[in-house]
Parts: sequence; structure tokens; C-alpha cells
Amino acid sequence: MTGLFPLWARHYPRQHLGADLLAGLVVTVLVLPQSLAYAMLAGLPPQAGLYVSILPVLAYALVGSSMTQAVGPVAITAIMTFSVLSPLAAPGSPHYIAMAAVLALLSGLLVLGFGLLRLGFLSNLLSRPVVSGFISGSALLILVSQATLLLGVQVHVAGTWGQLRATLEQLPHANLTTLLLGGVGMGVLWLSRSVLARMLVHWGVVHSRAEMAARLAPLLVVVVSTLVVVALDLDLHYGVAVVGPVKSGLPDLALSLPGFSELGLLAIPALVLAFIGTVQNITMAQALAMKRRERVDANQELVGLGLSNIAAAFFGGMPVGGGLSRSAVNVASGAQTPLASVVSAVGMLCIVLLGTAWFARIPLAILAASIVVAAIGMIDVAELRRAWAYDRADAFAFVGTALGVLVLGLQLGIALGVGLSLATLLYRASTPHIAVVGRIVGTEHFRNVERHGVETLPGVLFLRIDESLFFGNLRAVESRLLAEIARLPDAHDVVLIMSAVNSVDLTALEALTEIQQDLRARGIALHLAEVKGPVQDRMLQTDLWKSLAGHVHLSGNAAFECLLVTGRKEPLPL
Amino acid sequence: MTGLFPLWARHYPRQHLGADLLAGLVVTVLVLPQSLAYAMLAGLPPQAGLYVSILPVLAYALVGSSMTQAVGPVAITAIMTFSVLSPLAAPGSPHYIAMAAVLALLSGLLVLGFGLLRLGFLSNLLSRPVVSGFISGSALLILVSQATLLLGVQVHVAGTWGQLRATLEQLPHANLTTLLLGGVGMGVLWLSRSVLARMLVHWGVVHSRAEMAARLAPLLVVVVSTLVVVALDLDLHYGVAVVGPVKSGLPDLALSLPGFSELGLLAIPALVLAFIGTVQNITMAQALAMKRRERVDANQELVGLGLSNIAAAFFGGMPVGGGLSRSAVNVASGAQTPLASVVSAVGMLCIVLLGTAWFARIPLAILAASIVVAAIGMIDVAELRRAWAYDRADAFAFVGTALGVLVLGLQLGIALGVGLSLATLLYRASTPHIAVVGRIVGTEHFRNVERHGVETLPGVLFLRIDESLFFGNLRAVESRLLAEIARLPDAHDVVLIMSAVNSVDLTALEALTEIQQDLRARGIALHLAEVKGPVQDRMLQTDLWKSLAGHVHLSGNAAFECLLVTGRKEPLPL
Repeated sequence: MTGLFPLWARHYPRQHLGADLLAGLVVTVLVLPQSLAYAMLAGLPPQAGLYVSILPVLAYALVGSSMTQAVGPVAITAIMTFSVLSPLAAPGSPHYIAMAAVLALLSGLLVLGFGLLRLGFLSNLLSRPVVSGFISGSALLILVSQATLLLGVQVHVAGTWGQLRATLEQLPHANLTTLLLGGVGMGVLWLSRSVLARMLVHWGVVHSRAEMAARLAPLLVVVVSTLVVVALDLDLHYGVAVVGPVKSGLPDLALSLPGFSELGLLAIPALVLAFIGTVQNITMAQALAMKRRERVDANQELVGLGLSNIAAAFFGGMPVGGGLSRSAVNVASGAQTPLASVVSAVGMLCIVLLGTAWFARIPLAILAASIVVAAIGMIDVAELRRAWAYDRADAFAFVGTALGVLVLGLQLGIALGVGLSLATLLYRASTPHIAVVGRIVGTEHFRNVERHGVETLPGVLFLRIDESLFFGNLRAVESRLLAEIARLPDAHDVVLIMSAVNSVDLTALEALTEIQQDLRARGIALHLAEVKGPVQDRMLQTDLWKSLAGHVHLSGNAAFECLLVTGRKEPLPL
Repeated sequence: MTGLFPLWARHYPRQHLGADLLAGLVVTVLVLPQSLAYAMLAGLPPQAGLYVSILPVLAYALVGSSMTQAVGPVAITAIMTFSVLSPLAAPGSPHYIAMAAVLALLSGLLVLGFGLLRLGFLSNLLSRPVVSGFISGSALLILVSQATLLLGVQVHVAGTWGQLRATLEQLPHANLTTLLLGGVGMGVLWLSRSVLARMLVHWGVVHSRAEMAARLAPLLVVVVSTLVVVALDLDLHYGVAVVGPVKSGLPDLALSLPGFSELGLLAIPALVLAFIGTVQNITMAQALAMKRRERVDANQELVGLGLSNIAAAFFGGMPVGGGLSRSAVNVASGAQTPLASVVSAVGMLCIVLLGTAWFARIPLAILAASIVVAAIGMIDVAELRRAWAYDRADAFAFVGTALGVLVLGLQLGIALGVGLSLATLLYRASTPHIAVVGRIVGTEHFRNVERHGVETLPGVLFLRIDESLFFGNLRAVESRLLAEIARLPDAHDVVLIMSAVNSVDLTALEALTEIQQDLRARGIALHLAEVKGPVQDRMLQTDLWKSLAGHVHLSGNAAFECLLVTGRKEPLPL
């Protein structure tokens, strides 16, 4: 019987009960505005954001492995849903809503599959600059999508660039009341994010409480602005757009099963969504776990996220993900275990059943303001600056991915990002560091002949390769080796010091074999030194090992001593 | 004035003149049958193969950097041309011929661009098993394409699988005379390839002459079979298909410039052709140069190959490449410099002007037989076996690429190959070898605690990472580190020995920075030891370096001594 409960529930530490209950209730209230906002960002009715804060949150709490990560409607999955579906159907239309549910189902099944097949390592396909570049590019897309709401204008153009141009053309027709409301909202939210907590601490408030107060600000902004709208009837007399009636009660569990043509349209987007969800979820779960000295199981995480999205398909119909701000609210509210998420799901259920009438007159500009402030926070200039200072290749990968997202769209953008990640890796590995070394007199140490005064043996070349050998760098190694031999006209022995060679792939092995045959034909013996255990194990049965004209030495020094004593002064007899 | 001549011509070694003249003439005659055969494999009129053995060969001889590589019509570019163009137009039709010329032009411009932009390193994108898998898969496609000619049947179906099925259905209608002719031809060619040279050597013939005789066999087979056709009028009375009239004289230099829609259709195929041409040419040029102790300049090679294809577009209209068998014939005939290729181009020009009437009654089945034997030789079972024995991942990459070529076609096949190359690389690098190490008593050496009796310090963890740190493996490093710390409950110092870490990318640097902050918060100091010069240079300005709770030690032993003397027995004060 207890086997049905997740591990954390079976051994639930009683002392956390109070903290978890309180955190759960706080989270319920605090994530309300963003749940509505992200649903609308996704092009869905606002209640969808509330629905997917119930069953999907429960599913993840019961199955996921992270103690404090919170899933739910998040900015990245929302903008991806919008950018995938808006070319296919009018946002908010029944067809659009049905396709969003299918998208959640497909990506949920894929993520679940990744988890069950233990493909969590797929998230290693992306470097951090690429992930940051992708998120930064997406944030710019979000800004474009929210501009109409802040201006109080309507634009019916698909595509980021068309939308941007149409929005700019509408600029003279902006609703000034809406603009004022949104502008003040953004200002307050921005201040609360950036300086409120610091000011409160400065005024003597305890750090954790100051942080909590800062997180409360968005809710307060929504409440106050809604009260202003109601008091002055801004929606009725000044054309300020509001959320409008939010459906009360539970959603119908119906899911229109996708036809083949729909599957074809949504398969790739679902894959991209699943991939991004995977990367984001695992990255964040590990970061959160590390702070609490816990471990997460990447594959278990994916099972949780997958089931959560499958639940979302039936109950709300909007893809969900692991949310940075949701999780931060959860941690800041004092959550200790997923029980907090269970409580917040129950709390959201109560709100959906009882209280949605309160949301009708929330001004859209304020929700847009909260999205914009969150999106600006997602633009990771600091990472770009660090990348530029540390490694230009990483900076180019960041910029390339961000531009890819803006120019080519989210899907090709992320494909470009994977390509850039791998290209950086390949480029770095294909320009290996190789040094001609000699022995420091009186020691057993070998160092670069150009940097140190070292002793060498006439006609013997000691070469240290500082990289694993694989198809991408063996040509560089080969040409360097041949160039160094050409500079040593009476060469008769070459020693490759392999202390930093962690693996040798088949392409490199065969190239080495050919190099050794070629050198032997020229009367030069190839020796290997300091071959690592795992590399040596693999090589034992190969032609290279069997046909080596030279020897395998335990160390560079052993090779030196051996060649000093037994060394030929002449090339090998042919 | 002399600047107009290539380097090899300006300092031409007189003693090679005789060898080069002879080799050039021998090559002209020997490559005749394959030039006709590959043109027809490409779906072009036979004379196209002769034309592109003139001007393109000259262009490469004057610009390329390899001394003995010979370019011309080759099997891989021929089958690629056929598989790209046959769905777009009827092979041999004027539109088809025009598009083949455009394909040569586009891929020539691309290769030239690769060379001028110094992108020769692009050829490092493919591992050898993937290249072998690609060539093996292409060889199987060639076999399918030649089956109709060997059977003497006609099939009008596009696509490999459809063609294969249609050919099998035609099996009962095979022309037995053709089958017999082709079968005997294949048998003789196969024997001459596999055992003739060995038998001749066994009978006392000098090795180089035996090899030459074996290479002469294909020409003899063509001559003899043509004589048989003429003597018995096999083409007139027994329905044996022959080459038919081969246009004499020079081609018209007209090239129909491609329209935009054609450019769109041919851009990707041209890119694939350029990429494969690049890989093949550089690989072969380097292999040939190595045997002769020469160097090739990869980018100069590409300039040569690019110009050669541009010349081919105007003069013959068929993409060309560096050919394994062409180059082997060249070397075996004793060629010493590209002068041999110049001579062979002039020789081919004479044949085109004077002697094409002789080719009309060559039986197609014999040309098909020579292609089939060459294609069977391209299926690299030995490489697959080596890969299977040495590294399963490489074997899977081979099989995956070959299957990709067969099932998805040449273009998606090679894309899959690049993907598999990179995936193997990433997979290998993402499972780094990490060892907990200790000091061997009485020495300065550190070894794996599991394999050696070593001394350690209580509460101190020595961890050696045997791989460069990058986005793909830092999670593995992180979880191993945390797991080892968890096994050492009173840990207060962690020393990372970085002797095999050749680079640290930004993603890994930031992860290390976070790990260090997290460890410090737990009262554990992180130390680094044996950080390589280039890695250290980059790290100096980073937060990690500045905020390190521990120290940077020159060696593992220095860290040991330092912690032994000054070491805390307690965690850091928080």
C-alpha cells in the first residue's frame, strides 16, 4: 500500500509539515497572476493557466525527484506554444485550444519516453551560453508579443517581424490610459525586483522577510491596479482592456485526439518543446538540489515532467515546465518537500471552484507588464559578457543562437544552438596543444623545449600530445609530427608522450598505424610512453601495438633512459 | 612570367621527365574504360567522361598541391550526380545534361570557396568509420544501378528500392548472352584484382610489373569483349547492348546558366557533393603525400578541386573528384609530378579528336562489370570488423551511415553520418574517467585508491579528472564529486587534480564556480592542482580563481604536503 506513495511521502519528516503547508498556500496566491498571464501569452484562455496549476503540479509532486522544483505554466513553454500554433490557427479559437492540448500530450509522451529510456544525458547537448542565448532570444520574442497589450492596440499579423512592424504602425493609436497603467505597473515591478529587497534589508528587515515582501509585490500590483480599474471604471469608460470573464469550475476532461495531418504538423514542435523542457528542468532541478545538498535523478525528473504534461493535456490543455520564478517563490516561501506543491494544487483547485469572478477586471496591461519585467530578467547580458571575456567561441555561440531564434524562429534557433555547441566543441578539440619536450637536467620531468632549458637526445623527437586523439584532430597531430620530423633530418626515433591522451578513437588509431608504417619505411621507430590504462587495454589487440617498431615505455623518462642506453645512432635497417 | 607556372613546373626535376611522360600515356589508355563507365553511371553520354578527363585534369594539375593525386570522373561523384538528378529529369535528356553541368559548377564554386576561406578543416567533421560507411552504402547503390545493364533489361523506375524491385521482376526476361558476357567479365576482373598480381609475383615477375599487369586487365577485358561483340555481331543478332556512337571532336563550351528555381533544387545537392569531394580529396591527397614524404596544403587542394569542377562544368558537364583507382593507376605507372596528368590530358584530347569511333561497340555489360567490381571493392568490411573489435560506437556509426544512405538517400545519409560522428564524440567525452587518488607511500606519485595501496589524508578528497571539462561532461563530474563527498562525511578539503584537463569551457567554468560556492557554504574548501598553463591563463580573471576557498597547487603532492602541514581538521568556519 505504501508503495503507491512517493519516497518523500513515505518517510515524511513531521517537523516540515507546518513549513510546507504555509509555503503551499503562499505559492498558490503568489503564482495566480503569472498563471493567468502565461496562459494568455500562450494564446489560451486565462483559466487554462489555473487548471494546469492543479493536476500537472500534483503529478510532478508525486513522481518527480526534486524536492523544491515547481512545475506549471512558464514563460518559455508559453511563448513556444504561441509561436508554434499561431501560424496554424487563430489564438483562442477552439481549434487552437485543441491543438495546444495535443502539443502538451505529444511533448509529455516524448519527455516521458526520454525518461524511461534513460536519455537524460541528452540535456548535455547544449552548452550554457547556447541555453542562455536561446532564452534571451525567446525573451525578446515575448517582449514583441506583449507590446500590443501595453499599448492597448490590436494587431492581427502573424510572425515576429510582421507583428513588430504592425505594432509600431499602431503607435499613434495607443490608448494612453492603458499605457500609463502598464508603465506605472512596470516601474513598480522593476523596482520591487531590483531594489525593494535591498532597501528593506537596509531599513533593518530580516533578509528572508525582505525577499518575501519583494515577491509579494506583483500580487499587490495586480490587486491595486484592479481596484483602480473597478473604482474608476477604466475598462468601461477609458477602453482599458481587462481579462474578462474567467470560466469557473473544473475543465471538461475531453481531449480531441489528433489526426495524422495534425500529428505531422505538431511532431517537430513537440520534440523541440520536449527537448527544451528536458534541458531546463534538469538544469534547474540540479541547481536547486545542490543548494540543499540533495541529489536529483535526471531520468526520474523527466518521468515526472512527462506525466505532468500528459496530465496538462487533459486538464487545462497547456504545456508546462519547470519554472525559475515558480521554484524561487516555492523556496523563498519555505517549502521543504513536494507536499508544498500538493497544498498549492489543492489551493488552486479551491480558487478555480470558488473565486474566479474576481479576475474579470484585472487589466491586461498589468499582466503584460509582469510578463515584460520577467522577460527582461531572462535576457542574460551578464552571461554574454562573461563569455566574451573568457572565450570568444562561447560568446559567438550565445549571439548566434539568440539571433537564430529571432530571425529563424524558436525551432531552427535551437537546432542552430545544438550545431553551434557541437561546432565549438569540435573546433576546440581539433586544434590540440602539442609540445616538443625534453628532460629537465637532473630530474625525471619533461617540459616544453621552447620554455625550459632541457636535455634531448640527438635524432630522437619527444612529442607530448595534450588532447585525446579522435577523428577531428588527428590531421593536426599528423602534420605537426611530420613537420617536427622534417626539422630533425637525422631523426631515427620518435616518442609520443600520451599522458594527456584519455582516449583514442578508431580513426585516430588507424591514422597512427599508418604513421607508424610510414615512419618505419623511412627508418624511424615510433615509441609510445605513458599510455593510460584504458587506452592501453583497447590497443593491445590492434595492429599498431603488434607492429610497433619502437617500444611502449612506462614514462617519458623510461623512454629517455632506454634510448640513451640501447639507442641506435642510425635509422632502422630497411 | 614564371610566376604563372605552378611550383612543381618552375623547379621541375629533369630526371623525372621520362617517367612522367610514360606514366601520362599509360594512364590515358588505362582510365579510358572507367571514364566511359562513370559517365554512363552518372546518367550522362559516354563522351562526357572523356571530356572531363581533359580540361579539369589540367586545371587540377596546375593548381592542386598533391604530386600524384589524379582527379577525373569517379564512382562516388557519379552515383551522387545520378541520385540527385534522376528524380528531376530523364537521365541523358538535354535538361538532365544541363543540370549536371550546373551541379558541377555550383559544387566547384563551393569547394573553391572552402579553399579560399581556408575551411579545409571541415573535412575533420567526419570520422573514418562514417566515411567508410558512406562509401560502402554508396557502393550498394551503385550495384543496384548496374544490375539492369548486367541483366540486359530495361527499367524505368526512379528511387533505389523501386529500381531494385523492378529489376528483380525483370529477372525472367534477362538477356542470357549479356548475362554471360558480363559474368565472365566480372570473373576475370575479380581474379585480376585479387590474385593476378600475387600469382605473377609467385611466378617470378617483379612486384611493380605484376601490379601494372593486374591494372592492365580491365583494358584487356574491354578490348577482348569488344572484339568478341564485333566478331560475332552480338549487338546486332543477340541483343547485347553496346555504348553506341560516341560523339567525336570537342564539346561546345555553352553552359546554360541556372535559373532561381534550379538553384534552389541543386543548392543542397551541390553542397553535399562539395563536402564529400572535400573529405575524399583531402583524405586521399594526404595518404598519397605521406607515402612520398611530401606535404599537401589542404586548402590549396580545395582550390584545385574547385577549379577543376568549374572547368568540368564548361567542358564535359560532369562533376569530378579525386579518384582512388585513378590515383593508384597514376602512382603504379610511375608518375612523379603533375606533369603526368598534363600528359594524360593531352593524350585524352587526341583520343577525343581522333579515335572515338572505336568505342561504339563496347558492350555495356562489360563497363557495368568493371563498375560492379570497383563498387564491391569499395564495400569496406575490414573497417567494419576493425571498428566492431575496437569500439562498438564506431561500428554503429559505420552501420548507421551505410543504412542511412540506403534508406534515406545519399544526402540525408551523409547528414546522419555527421550527426553520428558528433554523437560518438559527445558520448565518449560525456562519460569521463574520474578517479579518487592517493599518494603511493614514499613517492610523489598519485594513483587510483582502488588499484593501489596509497596514503590519504582524513577529510581530504583527491579527485583526478581524466578529460577536458566542457558542457557535455560537467554534470557527470559534478555528480561524481558530490557522491564522493557524500561518502566522506567529515570532508573539509577537496583537491581536483587537473593534469589531464586540457581545456575548461565557459559552461564548465561556471559550474565549477557554483560547485565551489556550494562547497564553501558547506565548510569544504576546493583546491586545484596541476592546472595546465593554457587553462590557468584563462582562469586568472574569473570569479572561480578569485573566490577559491582553497589554493592552487603546482602538483598533487604539493597539495598533499600543504594540507598535511597547514591542514584544518574541521570544516571551514561559516
